[in-house]
Amino acid sequence: MNKSISYASEHKGRFLEELFSLMRIPSISALSSHAPDMIRCAEALKERLLAAGADSAEVMETSGAPVVFAQKRVDPSKPTVLVYGHYDVMPVEPLELWTTPPFEPQVRDGKIWGRGADDDKGQGFMHVAAFEAMVKSGELPCNVKFLFEGEEEIGSPALTEWCESKKELLAADLILVSDTAMASLDCPTVTCGLRGLAYLDVTVIGPNRDLHSGLFGGAVANPLNVLSEIIAGLHDKNGKITIDGFYDDVVELTPEDRAMIAKRPFDEEAYRKSLEVDELTGESGYTTVERTGVRPALDVNGIWGGHTGEGSKTVIPSQAHAKISMRLVANQDHNKIAELFEKHIKRVAPKTVKVEVKPSHGGAPYMMSPSHPAYEAASKALKETLGKEALPYFSGGSIPIISKLSLLLNAKALLLGFGLGSDNTHSPDENYPVENFEKGIETIIRFYGHYNK
Amino acid sequence: MNKSISYASEHKGRFLEELFSLMRIPSISALSSHAPDMIRCAEALKERLLAAGADSAEVMETSGAPVVFAQKRVDPSKPTVLVYGHYDVMPVEPLELWTTPPFEPQVRDGKIWGRGADDDKGQGFMHVAAFEAMVKSGELPCNVKFLFEGEEEIGSPALTEWCESKKELLAADLILVSDTAMASLDCPTVTCGLRGLAYLDVTVIGPNRDLHSGLFGGAVANPLNVLSEIIAGLHDKNGKITIDGFYDDVVELTPEDRAMIAKRPFDEEAYRKSLEVDELTGESGYTTVERTGVRPALDVNGIWGGHTGEGSKTVIPSQAHAKISMRLVANQDHNKIAELFEKHIKRVAPKTVKVEVKPSHGGAPYMMSPSHPAYEAASKALKETLGKEALPYFSGGSIPIISKLSLLLNAKALLLGFGLGSDNTHSPDENYPVENFEKGIETIIRFYGHYNK
Repeated sequence: MNKSISYASEHKGRFLEELFSLMRIPSISALSSHAPDMIRCAEALKERLLAAGADSAEVMETSGAPVVFAQKRVDPSKPTVLVYGHYDVMPVEPLELWTTPPFEPQVRDGKIWGRGADDDKGQGFMHVAAFEAMVKSGELPCNVKFLFEGEEEIGSPALTEWCESKKELLAADLILVSDTAMASLDCPTVTCGLRGLAYLDVTVIGPNRDLHSGLFGGAVANPLNVLSEIIAGLHDKNGKITIDGFYDDVVELTPEDRAMIAKRPFDEEAYRKSLEVDELTGESGYTTVERTGVRPALDVNGIWGGHTGEGSKTVIPSQAHAKISMRLVANQDHNKIAELFEKHIKRVAPKTVKVEVKPSHGGAPYMMSPSHPAYEAASKALKETLGKEALPYFSGGSIPIISKLSLLLNAKALLLGFGLGSDNTHSPDENYPVENFEKGIETIIRFYGHYNK
Repeated sequence: MNKSISYASEHKGRFLEELFSLMRIPSISALSSHAPDMIRCAEALKERLLAAGADSAEVMETSGAPVVFAQKRVDPSKPTVLVYGHYDVMPVEPLELWTTPPFEPQVRDGKIWGRGADDDKGQGFMHVAAFEAMVKSGELPCNVKFLFEGEEEIGSPALTEWCESKKELLAADLILVSDTAMASLDCPTVTCGLRGLAYLDVTVIGPNRDLHSGLFGGAVANPLNVLSEIIAGLHDKNGKITIDGFYDDVVELTPEDRAMIAKRPFDEEAYRKSLEVDELTGESGYTTVERTGVRPALDVNGIWGGHTGEGSKTVIPSQAHAKISMRLVANQDHNKIAELFEKHIKRVAPKTVKVEVKPSHGGAPYMMSPSHPAYEAASKALKETLGKEALPYFSGGSIPIISKLSLLLNAKALLLGFGLGSDNTHSPDENYPVENFEKGIETIIRFYGHYNK
């Protein structure tokens, strides 16, 4: 793939300029006033893909922001890679915290600054650049499809339905995504796992009205106290989740898995200090990296009820509310877990109250084994480009669309992310090192070479 | 006291008119825009007390709304009764829920309607009327002092300091108050107990910033979960409060006490149904009436943290907050209880978080024994006026100023209230039956007769 790599190097200035022209379009999916920008950005991306060498590229309607789809057929006997990315970006407030305006990209201190620099215009565009380099150099070794959506930052509400209706069009052997981070260029990691999510709203209903806690306190169950008791009971003393059947489908780690996970450099003391807590905690028998990556967790994400303003009000409120989510790992099913959760809450709630449990949303966990050919190809590509051994990384976060696409297309997804923790994605002063952008393009080219051997 | 009773009956129309003229003044202590109305109301009350026969009456400055003080000396060898009441009223919003305007009092269906009809202009003015009847009939049997404050509805912030500086002026053998309710004219009750209050704010502090629950969930203590665990641990399975030493100073009920309390008619099934709960609850071994009247209780009055708005946010918040109050009974000291609470919370909190406990406010419990001469005199007066045996009532609520005055003046307070549960005090359509107003005046006159025998 040397010609392609040289091509990419020769054209790196133009690639950066082309990325900047995409970043100048404020394609903020969360704000309906930016709907024309979404279309403008999709059209620009389509033109870029055609110029890069796609056989065809289209801006396709969905029930929300449009999707950009492009493809290049090389040989039907070769595998097909579906590149997934998104051209929408997060809102930019508070504007005053940006050093330079979010939609006026520039390079400063070796980094690209601006909204979308990393997430996901910068990372997504590396694939367009790598593709052009391979096409123009005559080295593209397989069929490639591109799917850039415009609603990732608002949860891809329209995409699943759209993908279901375009299953044949999207059919691929591998989904290739750069929308995650790696530890650093010195310690390249490939995301092999994402946790799933089951998020539910719980309401505890006591008396039919707010009561005076002086007159009624001591005789009537207080929904706030009851909710606290229910939440407290969700973990046992070992930090295990007490919901019946919760762990039934969890893939337990082999000693080999654990050894592999332990290879990733992780300074627990620095981590603890950075959070300014005296002690970390979690499920007994697992390390911090395991607890956040390959083990499930349950957290209250919000709680409220009674008097929450200034001063004191002596009230027993009629209702108490909590938002509770569980991070799931392979092979937990988020719908099943939501059901188990609801059943558990209803079983443990005392007769003094009523409880309502409403599933809010969920997503499946995702896992790619490090023995998968795509992982191995990525590992070799990273080694050649960066001179370092790649390590698998199990992220605690969730990217619901990845597991959905993977299930829908019956193809694994390779999460080859080049972002860094310091990129301020979703925050002011989003940035992306130029080196990551360029090394990313090179790694992607090398990956195609190995994946098709 | 027959002449006084006849006098009161003959002048009942005028007494009502005089009460109306006080009720027409919108003396809302919570709203600073009503400061001139406070002064106007205090002046009107002073004039009324002078006209009723006080030797002297004054509007006296405090650091807040003024106090009305009046007295009539009869004989230094006779006891002195200090009547306490308040001329301020609660705000009236929402105005649209009032059938007739709150400051345009009228009689309808045998009831006085308007803000302050019961609380406390109506009940307070009964004492002025009874006083006039006794003075004008030459039957006033003892020395009487009047203390009407103007900040009861906002917690009497200025009164304690003012009273401390006027101890001698206020010196009395008994404090007489009508600012509470009775079960009904058919079942007269005398409030013999008020619960005290210790109200505290608890903050659980975890990581130094809000964290992504996907990336950190499972390894870092979540302040919302920890707060729930702390709250859950505040009660044991028998509904007892688990704070070390909490019950040390509680006066345990004698079998006689409990028999007396059980006499009060109480329909537990109707109570339960009116709250629309399937089961009541509370401290094992005590009845609902005991649980709310003579036993302490602990309630969360407010809780909040994390994402409390619409939709879902996957956050581990940096902090969690709760407002927790304890109702106290004789002889618990609210300062000591606040200290025990703080010590307990700090002891049980795990090392994974920090906790802050801030006392918000408190008040001492109050108890008058039914064998106290004032209670016995009230009991006789009620029997003669209403033809029914009076029962002692232990209220679960708190009136902090009562216990403060009682401690300060070293005199018991008789809580001879004539309000009803249906009077809508603090709510729209506040009312007070004319019969309660008139029977109240008669009972007060008879009380003076018996108290001085």
